[in-house]
Amino acid sequence: MESNSITEHIPKRRRQNARTSNIEARTKKNTTQVSFKQPFNPLRPVDFINEEEIETIENASFDILENLGIEILNDQAAEIMRANGADVSQDNRFVRFDRHLIKEKIKTAPEKFTYYARNEEKNLQVGGNALIFALVGSTPNVSCLDKGRRPGSWEDFVNLVKLGQHINVCHSTSGYPTEPLDIHPSIRHLEAARAFLTLTDKCFHCYSLNPFMNTDSIEMARIAYNLTEEEVNERPLITSVINANSPLKYDYSMLQGIIEMSSRNQIIVITPFTLAGAMAPVSLAGAIAQQNAEGLAGLAFTQMVRPGAPVIYGAFTSNVDMKTGAPAFGTPEYTKAAIISGQFARRYKVPYRTSNVNAANIVDAQATYESQMSIWGNILGSVNLMKHSLGWMEGGLVASYEKVILDMEMLQQFKEFFEPLDISEDTLAINSIKEAGHGGHFFGTKHTQENYENAFYSPLISDWNNFENWQILGSKTATQRANEIWKKMLIEYQQPYMDIAIKEELDAFVEKRKKEGGIKTDF
Amino acid sequence: MESNSITEHIPKRRRQNARTSNIEARTKKNTTQVSFKQPFNPLRPVDFINEEEIETIENASFDILENLGIEILNDQAAEIMRANGADVSQDNRFVRFDRHLIKEKIKTAPEKFTYYARNEEKNLQVGGNALIFALVGSTPNVSCLDKGRRPGSWEDFVNLVKLGQHINVCHSTSGYPTEPLDIHPSIRHLEAARAFLTLTDKCFHCYSLNPFMNTDSIEMARIAYNLTEEEVNERPLITSVINANSPLKYDYSMLQGIIEMSSRNQIIVITPFTLAGAMAPVSLAGAIAQQNAEGLAGLAFTQMVRPGAPVIYGAFTSNVDMKTGAPAFGTPEYTKAAIISGQFARRYKVPYRTSNVNAANIVDAQATYESQMSIWGNILGSVNLMKHSLGWMEGGLVASYEKVILDMEMLQQFKEFFEPLDISEDTLAINSIKEAGHGGHFFGTKHTQENYENAFYSPLISDWNNFENWQILGSKTATQRANEIWKKMLIEYQQPYMDIAIKEELDAFVEKRKKEGGIKTDF
Repeated sequence: MESNSITEHIPKRRRQNARTSNIEARTKKNTTQVSFKQPFNPLRPVDFINEEEIETIENASFDILENLGIEILNDQAAEIMRANGADVSQDNRFVRFDRHLIKEKIKTAPEKFTYYARNEEKNLQVGGNALIFALVGSTPNVSCLDKGRRPGSWEDFVNLVKLGQHINVCHSTSGYPTEPLDIHPSIRHLEAARAFLTLTDKCFHCYSLNPFMNTDSIEMARIAYNLTEEEVNERPLITSVINANSPLKYDYSMLQGIIEMSSRNQIIVITPFTLAGAMAPVSLAGAIAQQNAEGLAGLAFTQMVRPGAPVIYGAFTSNVDMKTGAPAFGTPEYTKAAIISGQFARRYKVPYRTSNVNAANIVDAQATYESQMSIWGNILGSVNLMKHSLGWMEGGLVASYEKVILDMEMLQQFKEFFEPLDISEDTLAINSIKEAGHGGHFFGTKHTQENYENAFYSPLISDWNNFENWQILGSKTATQRANEIWKKMLIEYQQPYMDIAIKEELDAFVEKRKKEGGIKTDF
Repeated sequence: MESNSITEHIPKRRRQNARTSNIEARTKKNTTQVSFKQPFNPLRPVDFINEEEIETIENASFDILENLGIEILNDQAAEIMRANGADVSQDNRFVRFDRHLIKEKIKTAPEKFTYYARNEEKNLQVGGNALIFALVGSTPNVSCLDKGRRPGSWEDFVNLVKLGQHINVCHSTSGYPTEPLDIHPSIRHLEAARAFLTLTDKCFHCYSLNPFMNTDSIEMARIAYNLTEEEVNERPLITSVINANSPLKYDYSMLQGIIEMSSRNQIIVITPFTLAGAMAPVSLAGAIAQQNAEGLAGLAFTQMVRPGAPVIYGAFTSNVDMKTGAPAFGTPEYTKAAIISGQFARRYKVPYRTSNVNAANIVDAQATYESQMSIWGNILGSVNLMKHSLGWMEGGLVASYEKVILDMEMLQQFKEFFEPLDISEDTLAINSIKEAGHGGHFFGTKHTQENYENAFYSPLISDWNNFENWQILGSKTATQRANEIWKKMLIEYQQPYMDIAIKEELDAFVEKRKKEGGIKTDF
């Protein structure tokens, strides 16, 4: 594999794990990290509804696909669907899918595949019980305690990408962590892809909002990974999220995105935008049935474009606050929908995508309890790709620097929680119990002295000082402590190695495309 | 049943559920409550370790009980244990339990029982997949945003008890919600029991820190419930937590507490205090093995006192912060221990107790993410009695008024999450999808108009306004909003009915015991 030549030159990264980082925490403070190593979810997926109920909802999805059909705004997609046996209207605008066609087509979607990074040590498994925690994406605004809430900028974009690279428990970027509004939209995707490919060596994502967005991104990844076109087609390097324009509609760009990406064997993440009460029925069962109908249509289409193309079943179902019409996230309904949607992804034997979401306007107690309700729903639903894992706020309107760090702490804790219980003669420690004696204390025992430094998860944000010491240290909230940490991390950030020739080729491509005017925009 | 006469006179409570309260929320704001109805956990308990691993840990527990034994500081307990076949040292100070004796004895502990309230509509099921969320207990300090952190007082005690009564998702009190330090300890238990029995009509708890504490409390409950002594012995009315003085020790009062309570068929909650690294080995496996040894000894003793006496297997295992020696809660280790300990409770076929814990010094993002990590560990461990469900902070050093309300919100959300998915022709809402049309909107559909008011959980604290409206409303954090709500709830609180004759008898008992000097104290 050619890409070996890239990684050969990379200096051996300091491999940290929870144990060694415990010790470092004491000397370096606040930079405690777990290792990059992808976590595996040890919990058996939860079946919230039974087989009969699954079938009832699935039947409703099939009824929708067979009777109401999907509106499509892309002639090429219509032709592909027609050629594959779907019932496409004469004007190419509506398509009905027979349930047998859907079932047959989705069979070729892979259950598990590798998502390749520029640094092969950061390749990711997609599927099974492997987990990917991806950085926040697609927020128009950004916030931090110092400057408050403001529109996203290139400076913020770069900072957040750097944090995504620096934070080990962040496995990939996934869309613009905030929209760099000061970069003209015609060339924004070029600058963004260059930043992802040079400031990080982790897996990345491109948008399919315009056909050239993803073709440019694939070409830039090819250059950065030092691959031939054929090699690219053999390995999934990039994810692209395809949102159904719910209800029951896929627009031109989304369908074109599937065509461009799936034909190159790149990863499509089908994600219907089914907010119950707005873009889906005001009942959870109906919203899930609609999500599943839209998802199945998208899944089947990827396989019509190229059988075996990697595709992920995405769930975003939540509810709208019926008082204000605002989307709500991390609600009990979200948690339930995340678990149930996972049942469908497993039924169709494809990897599963969800998000770490909340609707709080400030990084406070609500932000984390809603995030936790999301994350646990995702984990119990056996998520594979958790988008917006770090930094998402306000239902996706804001990326918060402090929330990135709080999410990092929570995800590190999940990673530690996933570790199997270490049971051995040493850890059962009967001799230590004997040494402590009845009513005694364990601080002084040999076993404690030998193991205390690495025994437990060492926190990044959680402050376990007693109240008096916490006051002496400035009575800081967790959010204020997070503010100090992201600044420290930006200083600690190190740009990953890239061969100079590759960098030059990448720059040349960007310059060429800029001269060509980038992509057409509506602006 | 005599107690019927009590409840006959109680005016029909307004029975709220999530649906009706949704509507009320719009008119009354911030007093949204779910119904009192006990929730049932629909999730299959998680087996974090396998059968072989369970046996390995259990064997270690049995080795501890057979070889190291337990220190006991109560001659009467020693005699009971000796009479039941345990190997008690001549000086009555140490006792070794054969594994077969333990296994045989715990067989008589009931798997499920009823915990009786003064108001029989608030009786609780203990065991199976029924859940009890109990108010915070035993904190020496109290805090609120208005007055900050200070030692607990009678005023705070009464306020918190009233909140415990008013909040439907709080199913019982469970110890002093804060220690009323301005009441002399010799009579504190009398005032406390009177408050629990008159200000609430929910199940309650007494301490066994002094033998007369629990005998007084049982007698006061007998009066308040209008029962005969024999009737009391037939129905569990009171829980009392028995903490092992870990490692491997039960002191005089704890053992006497078991004798007094179990002989009267009252509920014992055996809870070893196994903080890994301090009172237990610095490894989780060792801490759980020790917790299980101490727990089994306590469980077996309750059954020696009275076969069939109700007893709950309690887990409190967490870890100490090895940097400061301070206990840490809501850690990944706590979550894991809560799930694994549940496996032991189920193995022994007894109900299971845990706690909603955190170690934060302020009601911030840390407080709720640590609480969530606790609650989810408890739920996945299939907890039955979750103590400190509302209000606990700082590893148990503080009861926070605001945290009571934040916990209420989180528990209400769990209760809503537990509700089965409603699947019917109406909720699948195909007609609504048809009416909205491709790319349409659901706000205006008939189905939405008919159902929007009651469709989703209506939050108490979560603010889903957009940023601009949130700013207009004062840019309040979740904790600041909680501050407003507990004040409103104290105004809304209504004292439950009690027959005047019963109230007089209760007062007379308290006066008599006060004149007698209450209990002996060390002060």
